[in-house]
Amino acid sequence: MPVGTAATVKGVHQRELNEDIKAEIILGNTYHLYLRPGLDTLEKAGGLHRFNGWQKPILTDSGGYQIFSLSDQRKLSEEGATFKSHIDGSKHFFSPENVMDTQRIIGADIMMAFDECTPYPCEYSYAKKSLGLTHRWLDRCISRFNDTQPKYGYEQALFPIVQGSVFKDLRIQSAEYIASKDCIGNAIGGLSVGEPAEDMYAMTEVVTTILPKEKPRYLMGVGTPANILESIALGIDMFDCVMPTRNARHGLLFTKRGIINIRNEKWKSDFSKLDEEGTTFADHQYSKAYLRHLLVCNELLAAQIASIHNLGFYLWLVKEAREQIIQGNFREWKNKMVQQVSQRL
Amino acid sequence: MPVGTAATVKGVHQRELNEDIKAEIILGNTYHLYLRPGLDTLEKAGGLHRFNGWQKPILTDSGGYQIFSLSDQRKLSEEGATFKSHIDGSKHFFSPENVMDTQRIIGADIMMAFDECTPYPCEYSYAKKSLGLTHRWLDRCISRFNDTQPKYGYEQALFPIVQGSVFKDLRIQSAEYIASKDCIGNAIGGLSVGEPAEDMYAMTEVVTTILPKEKPRYLMGVGTPANILESIALGIDMFDCVMPTRNARHGLLFTKRGIINIRNEKWKSDFSKLDEEGTTFADHQYSKAYLRHLLVCNELLAAQIASIHNLGFYLWLVKEAREQIIQGNFREWKNKMVQQVSQRL
Repeated sequence: MPVGTAATVKGVHQRELNEDIKAEIILGNTYHLYLRPGLDTLEKAGGLHRFNGWQKPILTDSGGYQIFSLSDQRKLSEEGATFKSHIDGSKHFFSPENVMDTQRIIGADIMMAFDECTPYPCEYSYAKKSLGLTHRWLDRCISRFNDTQPKYGYEQALFPIVQGSVFKDLRIQSAEYIASKDCIGNAIGGLSVGEPAEDMYAMTEVVTTILPKEKPRYLMGVGTPANILESIALGIDMFDCVMPTRNARHGLLFTKRGIINIRNEKWKSDFSKLDEEGTTFADHQYSKAYLRHLLVCNELLAAQIASIHNLGFYLWLVKEAREQIIQGNFREWKNKMVQQVSQRL
Repeated sequence: MPVGTAATVKGVHQRELNEDIKAEIILGNTYHLYLRPGLDTLEKAGGLHRFNGWQKPILTDSGGYQIFSLSDQRKLSEEGATFKSHIDGSKHFFSPENVMDTQRIIGADIMMAFDECTPYPCEYSYAKKSLGLTHRWLDRCISRFNDTQPKYGYEQALFPIVQGSVFKDLRIQSAEYIASKDCIGNAIGGLSVGEPAEDMYAMTEVVTTILPKEKPRYLMGVGTPANILESIALGIDMFDCVMPTRNARHGLLFTKRGIINIRNEKWKSDFSKLDEEGTTFADHQYSKAYLRHLLVCNELLAAQIASIHNLGFYLWLVKEAREQIIQGNFREWKNKMVQQVSQRL
């Protein structure tokens, strides 16, 4: 899922997402959307789809992660989280109930449960206590979800989130609790927050062993192309990450052959296509030297081109992974690709 | 001509320029292109068209205007202009001859003569002296142009530039001199540099009375929609201006009904199409409220959408003007439109 934090995937037109990148679903951030444009505007618009003109599915996170990573002076209680906006310092309160209501107003096709995303590193005792809160909050989310109706005439789903930091027993306990709720899909949170990749993979494996295979399993906030391939191997079906767009803005391009830092002098006179094997118009209409020039000049078009390329590549990567799984060649292909995509070109 | 200073129209893909905005020609800036990506890269690329993938015509200005508006410590002599780069302070020298050579390397379809663009206000004595230099430089430009060949297998044209500040006798003298050179098209420079609009129109009228009607007459750096319509009434055929893209980045939208400052609170919940009468996909796929939100959030997509809208509108405006001229209704239509497009909505 390309990340469209504030109702836009940065630097990319909805038409490009749809027709060139061929995204099937995008992510929005409840925390950002709640602050701007705000619920009043979103409700008057008839929801986020009507507001930004994206007609395919949207998943919104619950704000749990942003409250802990972006906002100031957050204060947690059993009831919910009080925090100050990172934009203007204004004070706000999120609870499991009002976060469900907010996502009803946003009209997300997939709503996420309100959780506490533990930081890394995190004491065992804190992670355990936090997990209890996250599970109690989940129950309140589910109640509110069941007690309310979609506002715009289409169904919405609710995904619960497994937490437990890097502690195996907590992850097991959480995965079992989440699985018992029998939701339509399940997510794994609290990873890709600074822990070593081995911990991330180990926790993912612990959890995917428990979460039902026949329902989508969503690993939140992951990751590099290699992270994604390894996690698919562990049973993950869904991902979101700012990396393809954020790194694009800094001139890092992910390709089938490895990673390109387009700022490097070596691309200055390389007039070959941006990515000969790329799937988007940007890969074939622009050269490496041209993109390098735009980036050096701080031109808007640099971010636009690189974002389209990276998102096109990420979408290709997961579609190809699916194809390889169907054909029974996934393991072999994955091992080769993980090497390839991690190289520096 | 949309302005593509550094080999890109800011925030707009070449595909959008071609297919959505339907630009027939874009402008590049010799000064900027010479500094970045530099002549070595442009020559290796096979010229600017190959470098940026724009296949329709390109016009490049000569750098005269930028040397006087952007660079530091410029020093003028009969031979040419020494200046320091606004990017890194490095020292450079432009002469009529090397500016022709540079535009040969860029591969502009229309090259502009190297001139001194007088500032406003400007003493009569300075303007007169400067005009002499501009005319002598023109002769050197024409010689060099005639002595050299295009590098990439297609013809290039050279347009001379009328100067003379806001002094009627100098403008007449310059227009007669320029007309005598019998170039394939002619330009009017040194206007839209801060003088009152009446002076700009008066000087334009003086000059268009003299420059041959059967050749394109290009008014450099103009202007607002109303400026463009009034100048067409005076016989102008070609324009370039940063206004549609620069103002777009600040949230100003030009429309058939007037000017919208999309930052205004009044558009916050206006979910109507960006421009019901607009010619581009952006006008119909996005709402005013959505664009306002993007601009308030400082999102890249704001500049992208507003730039496409404004360029689409400018291109519509000049195409419609042409249509009205052909149908014999131009005067009446122009008078109505000048009122309309100048209103604040």
